[in-house]
Amino acid sequence: MTKLIQVRNPRTGKLDYTIAPPSSDLVEQQCLHLRQGQRQWQQIGVAGRIEALQQWKQTILSQRESLTEALVKDTGRLSISVLEIDSFLSSIDRWCKLAPELLQESETGTAIPFIKLQQTSTPYPLVGVISPWNFPLLLSTLDTIPALIAGCAVIVKPSEIASRFVKPLMAAILASANATVPHLQDVLTFVEGAGETGANLIEYVDLICFTGSVATGRKVGEAAAKRFIPAFLELGGKDPAIVLSSANIELATSAILWGSVVNTGQSCLSIERIYVAESIFEPFVERLVAKAERLKLAYPTVESGEIGPIIAERQATIIRDHLSDAIAKGAVVRCGGKVEEKDGGWWCLPTVLTQVDRSMKVMTEETFGPIMPVMPFSTVEEAIDLANDTIYGLSAAIFAGEETEALAVAQQIEAGAISINDAALTALIYEGEKNSFKFSGLGGSRMGSASLMRFLRKKAFLVKTNSVPDPWWFDRQQ
Amino acid sequence: MTKLIQVRNPRTGKLDYTIAPPSSDLVEQQCLHLRQGQRQWQQIGVAGRIEALQQWKQTILSQRESLTEALVKDTGRLSISVLEIDSFLSSIDRWCKLAPELLQESETGTAIPFIKLQQTSTPYPLVGVISPWNFPLLLSTLDTIPALIAGCAVIVKPSEIASRFVKPLMAAILASANATVPHLQDVLTFVEGAGETGANLIEYVDLICFTGSVATGRKVGEAAAKRFIPAFLELGGKDPAIVLSSANIELATSAILWGSVVNTGQSCLSIERIYVAESIFEPFVERLVAKAERLKLAYPTVESGEIGPIIAERQATIIRDHLSDAIAKGAVVRCGGKVEEKDGGWWCLPTVLTQVDRSMKVMTEETFGPIMPVMPFSTVEEAIDLANDTIYGLSAAIFAGEETEALAVAQQIEAGAISINDAALTALIYEGEKNSFKFSGLGGSRMGSASLMRFLRKKAFLVKTNSVPDPWWFDRQQ
Repeated sequence: MTKLIQVRNPRTGKLDYTIAPPSSDLVEQQCLHLRQGQRQWQQIGVAGRIEALQQWKQTILSQRESLTEALVKDTGRLSISVLEIDSFLSSIDRWCKLAPELLQESETGTAIPFIKLQQTSTPYPLVGVISPWNFPLLLSTLDTIPALIAGCAVIVKPSEIASRFVKPLMAAILASANATVPHLQDVLTFVEGAGETGANLIEYVDLICFTGSVATGRKVGEAAAKRFIPAFLELGGKDPAIVLSSANIELATSAILWGSVVNTGQSCLSIERIYVAESIFEPFVERLVAKAERLKLAYPTVESGEIGPIIAERQATIIRDHLSDAIAKGAVVRCGGKVEEKDGGWWCLPTVLTQVDRSMKVMTEETFGPIMPVMPFSTVEEAIDLANDTIYGLSAAIFAGEETEALAVAQQIEAGAISINDAALTALIYEGEKNSFKFSGLGGSRMGSASLMRFLRKKAFLVKTNSVPDPWWFDRQQ
Repeated sequence: MTKLIQVRNPRTGKLDYTIAPPSSDLVEQQCLHLRQGQRQWQQIGVAGRIEALQQWKQTILSQRESLTEALVKDTGRLSISVLEIDSFLSSIDRWCKLAPELLQESETGTAIPFIKLQQTSTPYPLVGVISPWNFPLLLSTLDTIPALIAGCAVIVKPSEIASRFVKPLMAAILASANATVPHLQDVLTFVEGAGETGANLIEYVDLICFTGSVATGRKVGEAAAKRFIPAFLELGGKDPAIVLSSANIELATSAILWGSVVNTGQSCLSIERIYVAESIFEPFVERLVAKAERLKLAYPTVESGEIGPIIAERQATIIRDHLSDAIAKGAVVRCGGKVEEKDGGWWCLPTVLTQVDRSMKVMTEETFGPIMPVMPFSTVEEAIDLANDTIYGLSAAIFAGEETEALAVAQQIEAGAISINDAALTALIYEGEKNSFKFSGLGGSRMGSASLMRFLRKKAFLVKTNSVPDPWWFDRQQ
């Protein structure tokens, strides 16, 4: 029997939730069950799968309160939890709309006149998803929905730090089963557990999607390579924003503030470094500070303000460490600047730092908090070098008066998604196909139509259309 | 100083060629040089790259004899060497034709009215290619050409068993340089060495393409995962052919014979298992044997016959082992059946075996020789189960009277490319996108347009087109 895991509540610090991780045997059995269910799931075709997903969506809508309540307990914040549920539900609609065309077969001629090519695809039977705690619902379903609609069965292992949402979600899966739609519970399951359960899961699936840290991502990648299964890794980020001298300061400060502190900065694509043209540096910082100071903690109740608690206790330690390291090395706190404990929860107000440099952790390591270190630059080339001077390459933001000026810089940034005159737009727009650079990830795009295609193996049927028993030996070699 | 490698001649058995593998430092330096060259290569755009590749092609055409001569020494066979050069040269033309459209940028709207999406891509700066000895030129350039035209620099490490062709190829690269085209030698190099050189190379590139064994492929995949670089692996095969009772026996025997013994069976996609409906089993075997017996060894000269020597001495040992294992377990040799030594080379005539079963290595492990084990089946379901009962899933062939009957079977075969009423068509037709199943490989398709796309990172520019300083905090969350 595996050990029980006690889970901390981010608002109270109390261990008020218990997980009983499954044994390796149980994970294997569940995977076997999902594999069996997948055959019918594939056979019913995309129309049948759309019907089942829509039924699930309707059930979630009718049981929305219990899911919201669980997510709020998981994360300590309300409005982002509501947003997570909305985004998850609209992703079901988005994929239901896109999938029929993406899953079509095609037929064409080839270079040899009597050979035609029929192009088809077949889903990986069983997909594994290992997801993190910062957006527990959204990031556990971002790959799950396109995988399901592609015809795969899916087993999901969310972070043990925030998996209270699993029970209402599973309840909705069971409740959505009826006589007219295929039974989703035969092809989709969420297992609660920690790293060991995640490692188990990799041994039984045909493809693995992982969102989380670089260190764990590397282990996942190696374990997948050993088994010759594809691994799609979405790892950390240290996203830069570059504000050119021509930028609109009102626009840039609003967007960067949002991109830095939304979800208390607990987002892989949050802005963590801000480079501003020296000619507008002080006015920029003043406006940023003024706007940041208007934001309040969501304390004592979830409705109180915008900035929720730090979800993971170990992250509070990291943020505190980055702040004290920066201050010790000469950084100036312009607002915020403290990680504080209130009633057992950990909190941090939006923090603007100046006089920062590359010797500080806050400029090189992922902070994952509402911290905005701002640094001036003198030339555009310098700004690009500073932005690219990182082991990460997830996304970035560029602000300029003219779109063309911003795009010229964006071309030189080593990152997959770049917001122009806005920040962190990947969080809102799922259409753009993008790859991660450097240590930020590996494998095909989880955004755009390409995301669904990751879950399919392409098959090429090369059909000889005449019945002449050529090629005889010599003909074929000509 | 690394140890010199003495290379065996497949026709004479003599060690008549010497490789001086580069030190790790030298590999690193070459990679650095290629990285520097890549910047200009990317900047000149696809039109400039096409010009340089066409110039190289013209130079190769004018120096064709030296390349042919080296390849014939590498492999001991002539007509396939000629075919390799032709296929290589036509692949340059094919990619030059396809690339301009594939590399185009696009611009679309998004779900948010004032955000537009500009989709672009950027090449992985340095691609590594590690290739095998069975088609030394073709398999070292199959990934190289699309990578080059995508804008990457490429470093290639061919098998130490057959790398004599590198010198004339490199000479053509140097000779193709002139004042009007970019210098290909700054972005393309071939290094001669063995496994250690290959392992070195993985440490310095941004993406690795490997064609070879499952065991080495797994090591490559793990080393790549450690560095978060994409690995495209194309590994072994044990391709089945299924001949249904409705099949045209003349057509099936000609195609299967070609698919099994071309290049002396030294092809990952050669037919290695033949399942024939019991109602036509004997007539099929008789025609197959009759046709196989018409093929002769390419001995004493390369022009003598169709079947060249076994290139790698260790492969001769494996083929001999598979044959004696099968015979010891009751297989009946209907023609061929011996691995023989002549003047230091190893040779094997096309061999048809019956009374074979799954206890024999020849039915489960990759033989890589001109061996055709034929086994009867009673039902189509049995044939499908037999075909799928393998750790490999590269390609397959299905023969039936009606195309629809064959396609119904093909749908159920766990392999990426399936020839219908023909065999091993992937060797001739590069248009079909396909993925490997099971241990036959990992990563995106090397066939079809998708092949080129593997060498690009997609970038999404998400552009805010109005200058209103929304989102302010609350608006963005709605």
